[in-house]
Amino acid sequence: MAAAEIPQRQTLLRLASLVAIYLFVTLVLPRPESVTPAGWRLTGLFAATVAGLVIQPLPGGALVLLAITLAPLLTDLQLQEALAGYADSTVWLVMAAFFISRALLNTGLARRIALLFVRAFGNTSLGVCYALSLSDMVLASVIPSNAARSGGVILPIARSIAELYGSLPGDTARRLGAFLMVCVYQCVVVSCAMFYTGQASNPLAARMAGDFGFEVTWAGWFAAGLVPGLLSIAIVPLVIYRLNRPEITRTPEAAAFASSQLHEMGPLKGTEKILTGVFVAVCGLWITSGWHGLDITITALCGSMALLLTGVLKWDDVLRERAAWDIFLWYGGLLRLGRALNDEGVTRAFAQAVGDYFSGLSWMALLLVALLIFFYSHYAFASITAHILSMYPAFLALLAAKGAPLGLVVFSFASFANLSAGLTNYGTTPAPMFYGHGYVPLKDWWKAGAVASVVNIAIWLTAGFAWWKLLGLW
Amino acid sequence: MAAAEIPQRQTLLRLASLVAIYLFVTLVLPRPESVTPAGWRLTGLFAATVAGLVIQPLPGGALVLLAITLAPLLTDLQLQEALAGYADSTVWLVMAAFFISRALLNTGLARRIALLFVRAFGNTSLGVCYALSLSDMVLASVIPSNAARSGGVILPIARSIAELYGSLPGDTARRLGAFLMVCVYQCVVVSCAMFYTGQASNPLAARMAGDFGFEVTWAGWFAAGLVPGLLSIAIVPLVIYRLNRPEITRTPEAAAFASSQLHEMGPLKGTEKILTGVFVAVCGLWITSGWHGLDITITALCGSMALLLTGVLKWDDVLRERAAWDIFLWYGGLLRLGRALNDEGVTRAFAQAVGDYFSGLSWMALLLVALLIFFYSHYAFASITAHILSMYPAFLALLAAKGAPLGLVVFSFASFANLSAGLTNYGTTPAPMFYGHGYVPLKDWWKAGAVASVVNIAIWLTAGFAWWKLLGLW
Repeated sequence: MAAAEIPQRQTLLRLASLVAIYLFVTLVLPRPESVTPAGWRLTGLFAATVAGLVIQPLPGGALVLLAITLAPLLTDLQLQEALAGYADSTVWLVMAAFFISRALLNTGLARRIALLFVRAFGNTSLGVCYALSLSDMVLASVIPSNAARSGGVILPIARSIAELYGSLPGDTARRLGAFLMVCVYQCVVVSCAMFYTGQASNPLAARMAGDFGFEVTWAGWFAAGLVPGLLSIAIVPLVIYRLNRPEITRTPEAAAFASSQLHEMGPLKGTEKILTGVFVAVCGLWITSGWHGLDITITALCGSMALLLTGVLKWDDVLRERAAWDIFLWYGGLLRLGRALNDEGVTRAFAQAVGDYFSGLSWMALLLVALLIFFYSHYAFASITAHILSMYPAFLALLAAKGAPLGLVVFSFASFANLSAGLTNYGTTPAPMFYGHGYVPLKDWWKAGAVASVVNIAIWLTAGFAWWKLLGLW
Repeated sequence: MAAAEIPQRQTLLRLASLVAIYLFVTLVLPRPESVTPAGWRLTGLFAATVAGLVIQPLPGGALVLLAITLAPLLTDLQLQEALAGYADSTVWLVMAAFFISRALLNTGLARRIALLFVRAFGNTSLGVCYALSLSDMVLASVIPSNAARSGGVILPIARSIAELYGSLPGDTARRLGAFLMVCVYQCVVVSCAMFYTGQASNPLAARMAGDFGFEVTWAGWFAAGLVPGLLSIAIVPLVIYRLNRPEITRTPEAAAFASSQLHEMGPLKGTEKILTGVFVAVCGLWITSGWHGLDITITALCGSMALLLTGVLKWDDVLRERAAWDIFLWYGGLLRLGRALNDEGVTRAFAQAVGDYFSGLSWMALLLVALLIFFYSHYAFASITAHILSMYPAFLALLAAKGAPLGLVVFSFASFANLSAGLTNYGTTPAPMFYGHGYVPLKDWWKAGAVASVVNIAIWLTAGFAWWKLLGLW
């Protein structure tokens, strides 16, 4: 009993601290004049929810559903309004993408793609890293769960290749495994930053940008992420390689392993062919949505319907996709609460108050300072979502009020929220998965994260900003 | 391959017939003047969807999601509008009830309730039937899945008791098992009719009534169903008993069995105590919602949140509750499509057209004829949902146009949709579950269904109508 009571007590303590946060905001913090009392209670509820996502007295989804349940009781939001996020087309885009992802995982096509890359580029340890990173990048174009994609497909292959060369956690870690774990993980966060679907809360960031009047489409994000993203994936591994050079540099067995695995898998199955068609069609329609105007959610839903109709995806797979339902519950709820906060003018009021402190700075100077603060504050976050939720709209509001061009602000903060997840061994869900294999001591993991952060910041602030200028984003 | 191709071909044929239905409605059937072309295409989509729920080329949920995906492409409905059902508070009431149900099943409390009834009343075979039926009735106050409730909790106990007396399918079936299977099942459909939460599509019927301007609350349904429901549960078993008298009439071992099972379960566990409190609180708040005005969905959500916070329900149970997500997907979609159909004036136009044929009848005569047609048409339905969807709003519109009192029309059709599921061995999900144990030949099952239908119709048209008069529903 004693052992079981402790987590219960911890849970209660954490819940109590959330209640304390709510009470502190509503009773102690001075309410800005422009915000109504109900809006201020909503702020308290939101603050407690975001804090809850960090300290996790309950799983994130449960906590958000709790907030949605409490919203009509504590604030002016009607139940029907509080639930509105669950009918949001952005949320359903993520769901449809999850359904397509399930088919990519179940049919083995995702794994086949990764093996094809390894067969092509896997003759050196650096090549293996590039091969796995590029596979992850390709999959990120449609799989919004970085855990399923990197943790479920890429990581097992990385581990197998390390073991081919007898590299196990411990004495032999530095032979190959340590390098692959660090390096592939650092590229994973880049893939996350490159796509609207790179990571589950990117559409949330896009939606928040929409609340400020800047529409982010899949194609728009793709264009913005392409150049700085490819540069990061090219350069970061080179830097890590210098920093953390593996003892084994030639890895012909990796390519041979991929080749034999592919041989074992045989030629493309019928289901994989259909899926490839759907994958290409969906991405193609997403890229070209500016021309034909087909809503990207409808495209994704049509894609998953095609998979259901052809039997590539089973209905039961949809119903059993617990990760998708988890995302659905927290995502739909948070999206709505965030918007309500915006509607109540809370974000604006915050930005105005902070903006007054920095009235001497030009928008560009403020943007650079804010981006650095935003990036390194990820040391305090165990999830990109929590980071985006708590800081993204506030910084957007701050810089918009300062007159900074919205496109530049939106994409720079959105990419930094993802890139900064590389700092630690807990920055986003795949981080503990890669770190957890035990190849890399904590100190080295953080050191690599710090170095990669400097490289990424340098690339995205220079090449990224230049590219976005070319695209006319500022 | 040949064996696998046949269902695939059947699926394609069925899908083709749905397309044919859509084309028939939109291209062949004359469009009423009051309905727009887009509204008529929506009608075709709706007709094909309902037909699809009957012939099932895909699972119901997949089919509805397909309809929702096609709606923005074929009709005037925007994607965001088509998805709106997923934010509907009625849908979330069902979800919250499902979450509470999961706790009732997982903790064993549902089973304990049934065993308590059997211990109290189980000394005769008729008593066992009453005990199981009353347990199902109590559980129906909060568990909207009749399959989980009757099939998952009640049926296994019925089977165990039959076996106690050596009654197995085959020669010994008539000893006890055949009677219990038929009789308990006939009472299950009565429980379904008695509560807003008696069965998953009852809230759909309530919502459709709301579209006609008649609000159905949990408390209102409870009041309406109480008297005729209890009469049916009292009388139907007596009639079946005469018709299908079991060889064994004294069953002291059943009560003893329940007693020993309860002994084995030990005293109420902590989780069961909390759950009992939540169960009583939720039902109490639902019954009294007219006084305090707390929305019934908020009550249900608070109930499930209390279970999550106390650890009685695990978040993972919520995410893995595939039956709930299935219901969510078809329910949210259908609710929205049905409403859109109503908004387009299709239901009204249909009612007007049919009403003209019956202009000579008084509303009461028309109501009685319509109810009988409605009831016995369930021979053609394998689900209460499909029955409600395809006929309920049309009959409501017809009788409303004729000047019949809405309250009477709403509750009589809603109860009949449920009661009529007793006609066959496929009328609603638990039917094949009870029938499938193999105690009862098909002929006897249908005969019992026919007899019970006469008894139920007699009770609900006399005592039911009188009770509803007393309640002021007409």
